[in-house]
Amino acid sequence: MDIEMIAAAAARAKGEVLRTPLLTSPFLDEIAGRRVFVKAECLQHTGSFKFRGAWSAVSALDPATRARGVIAFSSGNHAQGVALAARRHDAPAVIVMPADAPALKIANTRALGGEVVLYDRYSESREEIGERLAAERGLTLIRPYDEPQVIAGQGTMGLEIAEQAAEMGVRAADVLVCCGGGGLSAGTALALEGSSLRVRTAEPEAFDDMARSLATGTPVGNAPATSICDAIVTPEPGRLTFPILQRLAGPGLAISDDEALRAMALAFQRLKIVVEPGGAVALAAALFRRDRIEGDAVICVASGGNVDAAMFARALTTLDG
Amino acid sequence: MDIEMIAAAAARAKGEVLRTPLLTSPFLDEIAGRRVFVKAECLQHTGSFKFRGAWSAVSALDPATRARGVIAFSSGNHAQGVALAARRHDAPAVIVMPADAPALKIANTRALGGEVVLYDRYSESREEIGERLAAERGLTLIRPYDEPQVIAGQGTMGLEIAEQAAEMGVRAADVLVCCGGGGLSAGTALALEGSSLRVRTAEPEAFDDMARSLATGTPVGNAPATSICDAIVTPEPGRLTFPILQRLAGPGLAISDDEALRAMALAFQRLKIVVEPGGAVALAAALFRRDRIEGDAVICVASGGNVDAAMFARALTTLDG
Repeated sequence: MDIEMIAAAAARAKGEVLRTPLLTSPFLDEIAGRRVFVKAECLQHTGSFKFRGAWSAVSALDPATRARGVIAFSSGNHAQGVALAARRHDAPAVIVMPADAPALKIANTRALGGEVVLYDRYSESREEIGERLAAERGLTLIRPYDEPQVIAGQGTMGLEIAEQAAEMGVRAADVLVCCGGGGLSAGTALALEGSSLRVRTAEPEAFDDMARSLATGTPVGNAPATSICDAIVTPEPGRLTFPILQRLAGPGLAISDDEALRAMALAFQRLKIVVEPGGAVALAAALFRRDRIEGDAVICVASGGNVDAAMFARALTTLDG
Repeated sequence: MDIEMIAAAAARAKGEVLRTPLLTSPFLDEIAGRRVFVKAECLQHTGSFKFRGAWSAVSALDPATRARGVIAFSSGNHAQGVALAARRHDAPAVIVMPADAPALKIANTRALGGEVVLYDRYSESREEIGERLAAERGLTLIRPYDEPQVIAGQGTMGLEIAEQAAEMGVRAADVLVCCGGGGLSAGTALALEGSSLRVRTAEPEAFDDMARSLATGTPVGNAPATSICDAIVTPEPGRLTFPILQRLAGPGLAISDDEALRAMALAFQRLKIVVEPGGAVALAAALFRRDRIEGDAVICVASGGNVDAAMFARALTTLDG
């Protein structure tokens, strides 16, 4: 895991992964008390950064292995990323999802070319199903974050941030990254290593395992809880991602679900982008944790936009007037 | 008005005007029956393409003239574009608005540095007020579309489309542009002149003056009507823009208000961008007028995203499930 691997992933991604814009608004600068730059990764193919890691992992396979196909466990953004990355390589993708996943997510994954295999999460083990399918068909498992080529793919976003920040005259800044398992945070931290841009994780308050793990130096999990930030509610830091962040990241930040909704509404109003709750936590931290951030500029990642109309309408109700 | 003027506007815009992305979704391709490329100009500074023309016009002034300031009549996207372009040049901007304009629009224009002068549109003439202020203070009027430097600035979007289409392997396509007075359409048509990309205007059905004018060869106006597409409800084609479009554009397209709302909802769901009704008419034409379009690809401009939460929530109700 180093910058060479990220550079190689970026070379493979050229023309396939969208170079998402770094957006600004004087209205957000005023709320945050400093210049705010938002990396609009919700505009990425499939609506989240996950396509980067999926593309990297699928494109890194040798052609014979890839032709047999890939498999992923996910009902969310990772599923869509893997399905589309595989289809664009003319490779099969099996996506294992709980049978009670939202119908729209199942339909979307199928529409992107994924073969969806449903399992009953109360009576069946997805690992057993996955292992059997992988063995029978020679499929390669693509993990959502504890996988070097996935982390390298997410790191391509960090390379873009470094370029765009330089173009916009930002010399030093914290880079706030929405954090579940830590793949995007770790990849970005590796891409920015040695620069004056420092990654900091942003999480929902009830799922701030990475922030607490970084603070204590030991991986710790979360107590049972719920959050609307479904894309990033992971039980504990990743095994590969935590050591990278321990070495490179600053202190983690955490925000409330209500703050995530307010950040979604401000992204609608001021940036004209659609951000899902889990994708809005970094912007929420930039806007509502200004005393925890240093410097005259902050960069934050809007990591995904796969939100249904009802939740989005709920976020809009937080706007005045 | 030629490509040289647009190239000069692009040179002045470098680092100031955002190069907005060209977005895609396989879901939209399926609805449209061909590949769809959406130029997300709603992500432009101030939330619409109007910043391009405003920047071009303000930056083209000689420094002494610019220092005295500029003036515009607008309560909408042009107002915000001129206010921010002037502020970034450290020049005063006077924006003349009706006293009954929405409070949020007045507040936004002030927040971007504009000096808002209100008038009673039932008892006062905005032209008289504007002429008096311009004479007293030596202000330069920035017209919203019938102004060569504004058209040239809008044309910078056309240069970007040509580059991005080539990068994405699109050789020939119709380029659908949301059309009010025709500044964006005319600038884009000039930028694409001689290429295999052809501009076609898109309008609300009740305000399809440009389409009818192009069809008959003579400028005609609209009968009294209303539309939710407030950003592009203009009475008749512009005097400078119509001849350009008559020479270069294909047949105009028109869509209903309901189709604009459905296009907004699909842009939310599939592209993760916020588009206002008037900014969604070109996408609506791409999606819902497939038999009027030729070729295996279509490019359409999402020209603005300044929509309030209530109207956006209304658009979202058009989604299934």
